[in-house]
Amino acid sequence: MKKIRIALGQINPIVGNFDFNRSKIVSAIESATSGGADLILFPELSLCGYPPEDLLLKKSFCEENRLQLYKIMEDVKDIIAIVGYAESRSGVYNAAAILHNGQHCASCHKIDLPNYSVFDEKRNFKAGSQPLIIDVNGLRVGVNICEDIWPPNEIARQQVIMGNAELIVNISASPYHVNRQKEREEMIRACAIKNEVAIAYVNMVGGQDELIFDGASIIADATGLIVARGKQFEEDLIYADLHLKPSAGSPQKAQAEKQGVLQVRIQKVTGTQADQVAEYLPGTLNESEEMLQALILGTRDYARKNGFNKAVLGLSGGIDSALTAAIAQRALGASNVIGVLMPSRFSSTSSIDDSLALAENLGIKTHTLRIEEIVHSYENILEPIFKNLQPDIAEENIQARTRGNLLMALSNKFGWLVLTTGNKSETSVGYCTLYGDMAGGFAVLKDVLKTHVFSLCRHLNKDREVIPENTITKPPSAELRPDQKDEDSLPPYDILDAILKQYVEQDKSVAEISVLGVDATIIKEIVKLVDRNEYKRRQAPPGIRITSKAFGRDRRMPLTNHFSTIEIKGRS
Amino acid sequence: MKKIRIALGQINPIVGNFDFNRSKIVSAIESATSGGADLILFPELSLCGYPPEDLLLKKSFCEENRLQLYKIMEDVKDIIAIVGYAESRSGVYNAAAILHNGQHCASCHKIDLPNYSVFDEKRNFKAGSQPLIIDVNGLRVGVNICEDIWPPNEIARQQVIMGNAELIVNISASPYHVNRQKEREEMIRACAIKNEVAIAYVNMVGGQDELIFDGASIIADATGLIVARGKQFEEDLIYADLHLKPSAGSPQKAQAEKQGVLQVRIQKVTGTQADQVAEYLPGTLNESEEMLQALILGTRDYARKNGFNKAVLGLSGGIDSALTAAIAQRALGASNVIGVLMPSRFSSTSSIDDSLALAENLGIKTHTLRIEEIVHSYENILEPIFKNLQPDIAEENIQARTRGNLLMALSNKFGWLVLTTGNKSETSVGYCTLYGDMAGGFAVLKDVLKTHVFSLCRHLNKDREVIPENTITKPPSAELRPDQKDEDSLPPYDILDAILKQYVEQDKSVAEISVLGVDATIIKEIVKLVDRNEYKRRQAPPGIRITSKAFGRDRRMPLTNHFSTIEIKGRS
Repeated sequence: MKKIRIALGQINPIVGNFDFNRSKIVSAIESATSGGADLILFPELSLCGYPPEDLLLKKSFCEENRLQLYKIMEDVKDIIAIVGYAESRSGVYNAAAILHNGQHCASCHKIDLPNYSVFDEKRNFKAGSQPLIIDVNGLRVGVNICEDIWPPNEIARQQVIMGNAELIVNISASPYHVNRQKEREEMIRACAIKNEVAIAYVNMVGGQDELIFDGASIIADATGLIVARGKQFEEDLIYADLHLKPSAGSPQKAQAEKQGVLQVRIQKVTGTQADQVAEYLPGTLNESEEMLQALILGTRDYARKNGFNKAVLGLSGGIDSALTAAIAQRALGASNVIGVLMPSRFSSTSSIDDSLALAENLGIKTHTLRIEEIVHSYENILEPIFKNLQPDIAEENIQARTRGNLLMALSNKFGWLVLTTGNKSETSVGYCTLYGDMAGGFAVLKDVLKTHVFSLCRHLNKDREVIPENTITKPPSAELRPDQKDEDSLPPYDILDAILKQYVEQDKSVAEISVLGVDATIIKEIVKLVDRNEYKRRQAPPGIRITSKAFGRDRRMPLTNHFSTIEIKGRS
Repeated sequence: MKKIRIALGQINPIVGNFDFNRSKIVSAIESATSGGADLILFPELSLCGYPPEDLLLKKSFCEENRLQLYKIMEDVKDIIAIVGYAESRSGVYNAAAILHNGQHCASCHKIDLPNYSVFDEKRNFKAGSQPLIIDVNGLRVGVNICEDIWPPNEIARQQVIMGNAELIVNISASPYHVNRQKEREEMIRACAIKNEVAIAYVNMVGGQDELIFDGASIIADATGLIVARGKQFEEDLIYADLHLKPSAGSPQKAQAEKQGVLQVRIQKVTGTQADQVAEYLPGTLNESEEMLQALILGTRDYARKNGFNKAVLGLSGGIDSALTAAIAQRALGASNVIGVLMPSRFSSTSSIDDSLALAENLGIKTHTLRIEEIVHSYENILEPIFKNLQPDIAEENIQARTRGNLLMALSNKFGWLVLTTGNKSETSVGYCTLYGDMAGGFAVLKDVLKTHVFSLCRHLNKDREVIPENTITKPPSAELRPDQKDEDSLPPYDILDAILKQYVEQDKSVAEISVLGVDATIIKEIVKLVDRNEYKRRQAPPGIRITSKAFGRDRRMPLTNHFSTIEIKGRS
């Protein structure tokens, strides 16, 4: 048996902050070297951050990758470090640099560039063509990047069969959605079992705009047993000692290269001898806790990486603003969250009481700004034009936009980040006011359906009351006119959410959704609302993606779109 | 010599409106049939509209393409019609259907799918692999789609060399930017000359969200001479009689197919005999007129295709709102444009006079809404929190947002589309207020640099005063504090625009831009502003793209991005 000690540098880089990212990488390399690791892996594009998007069109950005990699290289002594970066040579590649003993020994290029869902890699990268094997003192390691290990790709298999790989290492930046960790672990285990090969998989951690990378890196042995796992949603340095089964045949260099596998030999210098590392297998989280941690990390990273210490949000007494406040408090600390109550003539007493109870539970500061005078001055100025027209959505939106303006004024004056509180169900059907409750820098619950808002609040309250009970149990209302209730305008949230999952997340047609057993009239109404409100979502702030299809960079629909009409009226 | 009469159906379809698009196609087919054409071409994806974006992920959308094509097919008699549509068969293709005599004779699939700039075709389509030749009673026609005829692609050459094509037809949806028509004509002429083959090229016309398709379809003979041209920015039906040089060798069917060229034989039924068609060569527009027409078409189509008859905008007396109003008046008609004056204590008398003079020149209606009372009520409510802090950007933005709210209230009450008036120079450096002057449904000047705003106003005034002279000559000001001038905060617009062209449109670095001879301190300041204001642009309304790189779907930068800092501080 051959033995190798592997370390996974599960780091949280910042897009474009090369000095910051390099210093994280170098410090993990130093720790892992002292810890006796033979090999340390860093996530896909961790040197420049992921996804860098069109920064890759700047020559100076690509050049910075090269210069910074060179600096890291000088700090690599008797360990092999595999670092994700953008490599520019007659095209830009999504690359892994293999560094050892002050040398850049080889590069591996990502072959399958994902270009669906939130991914645009064919826009920004040239595809690699050759799988890489590094031969480290006779131990044969196949290196690949993210998508290249996912079925139906067979890069790992090629590396094992053609290149006699005894170990596969994969560096990833795999975005989170609910249940993704389980999917990843199953994929890695299946790949290990199928190819009878050990796999070390490092994933990025951290929030980047709408995406969360959840870490949870893993190492599996050749039987598919998970022998080490990184924490989910936190930085981590994971070690494992692997005892590898030597490959069946001797390496057929000529044969492998004929098959397109690139092979590079590395004479590794001897490192520190160390005792067996302890088993490291943090447990996995339940679904609610996982979602909650994703939302906390996303909020914290968007704020911190964009220079905000404090956040402000409107507290309506409702469940969405309550959950948003609770997440913000955990993300930024109670002293950094400011709740603003903005009651109007339509606000119930319980709106104020419930908001204050929430603030008390969370230990956050509040301000109260009554909007009546401002709303009245708008109505007064508009009176000559509106004359005797009945109050309608125009007057309702004036209230919401007055609140938006007040929060933005606080943001402008004090440098606070405005968090919006709308959920995915509302955003889907346009039950929200552009420049009103949609005004803000970050939409914490943008991808959280209302039914999940409820389950997350229940989860938060499992040990003690965080969200006031009355906030959870009272019927949801926008309180923009007397006795308004959400269910006056929308079907009950469990039905609405079931339709939205099918229409928004799975692109099903009205006919296909009808099998749910819901009245087709309701489905058509919802479909119409979703399509008609694309223009609002286009101007929505970014928010955290936690499902397999979020609004924003994921679901890209035209604004000018008459297809819905056909969907709704059906074909004759 | 072989003779063929070609018609180009330069139509303006609507994304997702299959009935509308089909009826346009069928009616052009009927006209061209009566006109004795042997062949009629329709633009790329004209049956479903372009770009359909993620509508292509809906099975029902792809199915509708098939059903509607089937209906068109039944209406095709003794003409050959080539229609762009999405063809679904184990993957979705960007396809051209060849229809004749009630039959679907063949399909051609786009081979090179653009996936840069505004294009995401690798996201939504599978690439074709075989160039197509149709053999029509012995006349050999190579069919290809948009990008496939652009260098370095050699599809047309392959069709000529391998497939003995005597005529190349290309169906396109090629978005406009300044000078694009000239680039296209040069490309087509070069291709004709190089391959000694006639080329018929049909382009789509119309606005779709941020994109303008400008038509200007052309037919070139085998010497590269343009023998027919469609109007730019209008629907058109273009005819030409081509006398084709028979290809040198006889078709080598087996040989061509070995080379991957697909060949389909069509026995064409005889059509109407007709006289020689008259030469049709509408002249081309000068640059200012071209930009103006693009902006008018973009505004008209966004409004009409989204169900708006009327538009409203704020008139500040400044040049941006004046130009926007003039464009809206031409796009929608004077009676459909409403100008709103919203003076504050900082508004000069000339702001009101100039606005009223403009409205008079344009014949549009105005309302005047003084914002003082509303602004005062905001300040009053915020006083306990703002206390004795100095007025700053917070108070300035309250004014801008009050105006935004008033326009949105009018929009909500009367169903008017709010047009925003900001230009590309302001949007680049964030010299605009989110939810204030940025509040609205469509940003007419989003991609128009301030220096172009001036030249367009001069152009509009060439015969008579449209834009009041004082509006053009007075120093630009936001009028949000006493005696404010744009140039207090920004470099002169000619310098600013020169920097923005290099940084925003060409991705140049500070060092590269320095060769302009501008002080590096100014460049660094501008670069910092551009990067720091990405968050505002992310929430901006859609607007018309007229340059080779617009904000919106074209320039895709991360919000969380620390690269600018490195750019600015330089490397030690």
